[in-house]
Amino acid sequence: MKQNDLQALLGEMTLAEKIGQLQQVTGDFYTNDSAEITGPLSNNLLSEDDLKNSGSVLGLSGATDTNAVQKKYLENNRLHIPLLFMADIVHGYRTIFPIPLGLATSWNPELVKETAAVAAKESAVSGLHVTFSPMVDLVRDPRWGRVMESTGEDPLLNCLYAESVVQGYQGPANDLINNADHIAACVKHFAAYGAPEGGREYNTVNMSDRELRENYLPSYQAAINAGSKLVMTSFNTIDGVPATVNTYLNRQILRDEFKFEGVLISDWAAMMEAINHGVAEDHRDVAKQSLKAGVDIEMMTFCYHQFVEELISAKEVDEGLLDEAVLRILELKNDLGLFENPYRSADAVKEAAVVYSAEHQQVALKAAEESIVLLENKNNVLPLATSEKVAFVGPFATSSDILGTWSWKGEISETASVADVLGTDYPTAKVTISPVADVFSVTAEELAAAKAVAKNADKVVVLLGETSQMSGEASSRTSIQLPEAQLAFWDEILSVGKPVIVVSFNGRPLDLSAVSEKVTGLVEAWFPGTKGATALLNILYGKVAPKARLTMSFPRNVGQIPVYYNHFNTGRPINFDDLGNKYVSKYLDVPNTPLYPFGYGLTYTTFGYDHFKVAVEAGAEPVITCQVRVKNTGQTAGTEIVQWYLRDIVGQVVRPMKELKGFDTVELQAGEERVVTHSFTFAELGYVHHDKKRYPDHGEFEVMVGSHSESVLTTRITL
Amino acid sequence: MKQNDLQALLGEMTLAEKIGQLQQVTGDFYTNDSAEITGPLSNNLLSEDDLKNSGSVLGLSGATDTNAVQKKYLENNRLHIPLLFMADIVHGYRTIFPIPLGLATSWNPELVKETAAVAAKESAVSGLHVTFSPMVDLVRDPRWGRVMESTGEDPLLNCLYAESVVQGYQGPANDLINNADHIAACVKHFAAYGAPEGGREYNTVNMSDRELRENYLPSYQAAINAGSKLVMTSFNTIDGVPATVNTYLNRQILRDEFKFEGVLISDWAAMMEAINHGVAEDHRDVAKQSLKAGVDIEMMTFCYHQFVEELISAKEVDEGLLDEAVLRILELKNDLGLFENPYRSADAVKEAAVVYSAEHQQVALKAAEESIVLLENKNNVLPLATSEKVAFVGPFATSSDILGTWSWKGEISETASVADVLGTDYPTAKVTISPVADVFSVTAEELAAAKAVAKNADKVVVLLGETSQMSGEASSRTSIQLPEAQLAFWDEILSVGKPVIVVSFNGRPLDLSAVSEKVTGLVEAWFPGTKGATALLNILYGKVAPKARLTMSFPRNVGQIPVYYNHFNTGRPINFDDLGNKYVSKYLDVPNTPLYPFGYGLTYTTFGYDHFKVAVEAGAEPVITCQVRVKNTGQTAGTEIVQWYLRDIVGQVVRPMKELKGFDTVELQAGEERVVTHSFTFAELGYVHHDKKRYPDHGEFEVMVGSHSESVLTTRITL
Repeated sequence: MKQNDLQALLGEMTLAEKIGQLQQVTGDFYTNDSAEITGPLSNNLLSEDDLKNSGSVLGLSGATDTNAVQKKYLENNRLHIPLLFMADIVHGYRTIFPIPLGLATSWNPELVKETAAVAAKESAVSGLHVTFSPMVDLVRDPRWGRVMESTGEDPLLNCLYAESVVQGYQGPANDLINNADHIAACVKHFAAYGAPEGGREYNTVNMSDRELRENYLPSYQAAINAGSKLVMTSFNTIDGVPATVNTYLNRQILRDEFKFEGVLISDWAAMMEAINHGVAEDHRDVAKQSLKAGVDIEMMTFCYHQFVEELISAKEVDEGLLDEAVLRILELKNDLGLFENPYRSADAVKEAAVVYSAEHQQVALKAAEESIVLLENKNNVLPLATSEKVAFVGPFATSSDILGTWSWKGEISETASVADVLGTDYPTAKVTISPVADVFSVTAEELAAAKAVAKNADKVVVLLGETSQMSGEASSRTSIQLPEAQLAFWDEILSVGKPVIVVSFNGRPLDLSAVSEKVTGLVEAWFPGTKGATALLNILYGKVAPKARLTMSFPRNVGQIPVYYNHFNTGRPINFDDLGNKYVSKYLDVPNTPLYPFGYGLTYTTFGYDHFKVAVEAGAEPVITCQVRVKNTGQTAGTEIVQWYLRDIVGQVVRPMKELKGFDTVELQAGEERVVTHSFTFAELGYVHHDKKRYPDHGEFEVMVGSHSESVLTTRITL
Repeated sequence: MKQNDLQALLGEMTLAEKIGQLQQVTGDFYTNDSAEITGPLSNNLLSEDDLKNSGSVLGLSGATDTNAVQKKYLENNRLHIPLLFMADIVHGYRTIFPIPLGLATSWNPELVKETAAVAAKESAVSGLHVTFSPMVDLVRDPRWGRVMESTGEDPLLNCLYAESVVQGYQGPANDLINNADHIAACVKHFAAYGAPEGGREYNTVNMSDRELRENYLPSYQAAINAGSKLVMTSFNTIDGVPATVNTYLNRQILRDEFKFEGVLISDWAAMMEAINHGVAEDHRDVAKQSLKAGVDIEMMTFCYHQFVEELISAKEVDEGLLDEAVLRILELKNDLGLFENPYRSADAVKEAAVVYSAEHQQVALKAAEESIVLLENKNNVLPLATSEKVAFVGPFATSSDILGTWSWKGEISETASVADVLGTDYPTAKVTISPVADVFSVTAEELAAAKAVAKNADKVVVLLGETSQMSGEASSRTSIQLPEAQLAFWDEILSVGKPVIVVSFNGRPLDLSAVSEKVTGLVEAWFPGTKGATALLNILYGKVAPKARLTMSFPRNVGQIPVYYNHFNTGRPINFDDLGNKYVSKYLDVPNTPLYPFGYGLTYTTFGYDHFKVAVEAGAEPVITCQVRVKNTGQTAGTEIVQWYLRDIVGQVVRPMKELKGFDTVELQAGEERVVTHSFTFAELGYVHHDKKRYPDHGEFEVMVGSHSESVLTTRITL
């Protein structure tokens, strides 16, 4: 449909029909017998007739169901405006990829794009049009359970992933009408949802406007620049105003500065929560503030439905604001081609073939392999040989709870555990398995059995972790250690005296200090998804080499939070040559550094850096060209992620000690060396000044390159 | 001297003499043989001649020394402008009062004023003119070691104490020239030094300008309104600019908005630290930025000395800025009467009589008694009777390290320990004492001896705590539990099976969760100062009744930080009727509430509240008059601190769940009741709006009254 036709359609719509477009309800409203509906419908907030005009549905998928609902809806909708189907497809539809925080450790935006494309394909064929993804919220606090859905603490990586995920979902050139295997992305949560105070879910966010713009906003902007069709508001307040009803955020920044022209949708009930926050008096006030703030779709509350008509007739809200919102929703439907084909690619037959296909599982395997981080490998205890006697013990030896949360259609029952994969893929390996049934307790029998197999083994792999439900939305924790029973279990296994490799399945950067020093090998598996067990064993047995690098610092303890690599120097920095100086910025009881820093991750080989040179092409817009020689100094092939950092020595405002400005992935055979070059434009050195604008300053800079944020070579340049 | 004379004096000064006034150095520069001087003098940054012009000295006291230095200085200073002597007199000069965080728990600004007056008297007679106090930084994070120097988490209490301490130091009407027993106050640290990220000393501070104005700035403003002669800058950045060189903070807010006309002094080396922060290029740049920002005195670095002359001749800085700064310093000297009497009340003979006098010690005793907080008193285990057999065990049974940091002239050697006081004041009490020599370790012998005396006792008092050095400046900690050895010790004593009272000596809100549930009695003693042991025993034996109330929340664990009473509701508050709801703002593993809330503290009796009524006198400026009946429902006399809280239901920005708006201290005999009335003006309900101005809104409010922040009666009113 052409823009003129959309305008004409809008012109034909009654006020009630327009307001209906702004309403989003769950699939239950359409699939259940209405007699069974509880909540809004039973409270007479929404009538059967109203459902004929509601513009979109969330949480319903499966081509049979969505097509049936769409068909019936179109029969009842006066102007035959199709429904939109939306859902939270976060790290895969039924083929589940590692959680986003794990995927991020691949430092491979192209791979992550591929996972998003697979998720889009499975979603599209199952009747979905929009996914509430990517979540691009920058996070510095691992207490926050939803950190699993983020890509970590770095603004640049968050931008790259924001872009790649949007591209993966939406396909080439964002041409969704001609790419029915793709779906629309909805970047979330606008804004700064990842910075709740104390890491406590839904808690207050407070930061200066400059800090917001410097570190938190760029990833949303990157997703929008990549074409994200929707933006979702966040639950938190920003400087005292809930994000959802925040006109500064949603009008000035989002619309005026970022030029976002797509649909702004509230998070679940987030509009109405302005009452709880204490900035709106009642539902009527919520409707008024939200429409003025530019929220187009109200998710699962009914303030627009109840009050927009009244607000317009009372002239408290201009009907033009309503028309704007409706037009944006119609444009989205049109962009998806729904007016021409309201069923789009939803097809139950194709769905059975496409969803969870072998091809998709291969992508999941590759993604998992690239997401598993090797944290310790003392005495080269890894990789294992199939000829070695290896005991696999602990709860995740047999648990298939490795998909992580936000795996709506993922099936634990069809997910192989480590024991399953050992059985099918390692028939000749000398392995014994001794499981633990629960993550929170270990029975005396389980412990005795585990110790017994450990005694008979050459090496012991202890598979520990959190349940999926210990991270994710509304799963904030004040303790970020492994469950106590597992720490006691690991201590007992350690006492057997064999080399121990701990593998941890979890959704957040844990405090692994109880393990890291005494362990021989340590592997961060995250929740690795559908093919996680296969991927893990491929790494453990050296079929593939680990290459993942952390995108978020692992703290030494919870009292050290927040700890992140791109911190400031402070006025009294620690001088590592004089650790005895009391009057510096430190704690008395732990170092300032994290246990495992940003960018860190081991391979099965080692890399050396030398011949680091930086050339500056002078001028008003200088170009910085860097060169370093990277050599595989170990005995086996491996992949190095060459990380480039910069520091602006003097700024109008304080600047971080280092900021990731780029990286290069280099595969090298044992003994092979390669000169890696990387260029930066002057613009890449920009930061947000007092005037709230981002631009670079001339002056002195440090350029750094290395294996991770705490291991770099440094050169100083003047621009 | 009259203002005209000061102007005339300024007119006579050379550039070097003017710049000298801006320089502050330590007393060493004047008392030591110059050959021994290290640092700046040896680096040729300051010459012998320069010392003849330096305007002030820090950290030198004792009338003999200060008078000698002043005499020699005046002989050498061309215009005979006297030196200022300044020092950190924080909670007493030699008579040491409880640490400020303890003093605050008295909820008795008049008493705190009295302690400041005593400190001023001892300081003045010892040759000091200025103390670097009060510290009025609002703190929400007990990891920060310097929390001991604050009065806690509440803006109103911080304001009241800021005012009372300034009045105590400066005396009636701030007429220092006629009150030579008083000294000038220097409120610090401007601004928001108490909010370092992660509670790590000197770390980055980030918050919105509105949050800064709402919660952090009022206490500085209160001190300034009370007449504080000086303000000290803070070490931290505010939105990316170090406070010391921050023109927004020091010109716009401090001078233009707060109308502060006194002296602005940098904290120790804070000016030069702008280089470390990365906003100044070198010492020259520091001098330029600092003078422009309005810093009058440079403490212990030499940027002004080195570069102001050059900056003026290069016309990069206007000489008018220098003149302004010098004039403010001269005015301070004049306000103190130093031109007429450069020795002021410094007198070695009087000093011997005044300092640590019996009268002053009585004030210290009263202050300590009012600062000791009773946290648990199960089965009325306290007060003790002298007829009971009581064992006193643990490190603080015999330790005199109970003064806390910032006790420069306080002498541990003249401070009585609990054992000392038991010996002198309780000759007939049936007590046994079993000490532990170290706070970080307990020997097997010590443990055995303690258990033995515990076995023979009716009750056991376990005296635990931190060393003074574990809190205070540069003493941030990621663990806020009692030292491990002490927790193990207490567990062992508990196992003896006698009722146990734990007393904790410490400088921060500790995580006392390992103790609170199992203990019978629990007493927070803070670092109670000179007469702390006597005060503690007076409380334990019921000679005086406890009445102190916390001014800062005690967290359940370090992972819960920050936890403070005046938090927001969030959009998804916990519904205490439905704790099973997952999607609310909470942690999975601990409640949102602190272990001991703001305003909490037990007495030896109980109080009931009823007949709560609120009357509103309507109008543009409504007056709210509240009334409640408070009854002593226990068996003994006691003091209740009746706490009044308000909540603004709907605001332009989110408003706290409750805010302390006043309190009344009521002494009641057993069975006695009294009607307590309290009025609020409309202006007291103001908050900082988007326009950065503080004013109230009409609308609905909740008025609350009760014993502490989590125990209140509530009434809703409309204004």
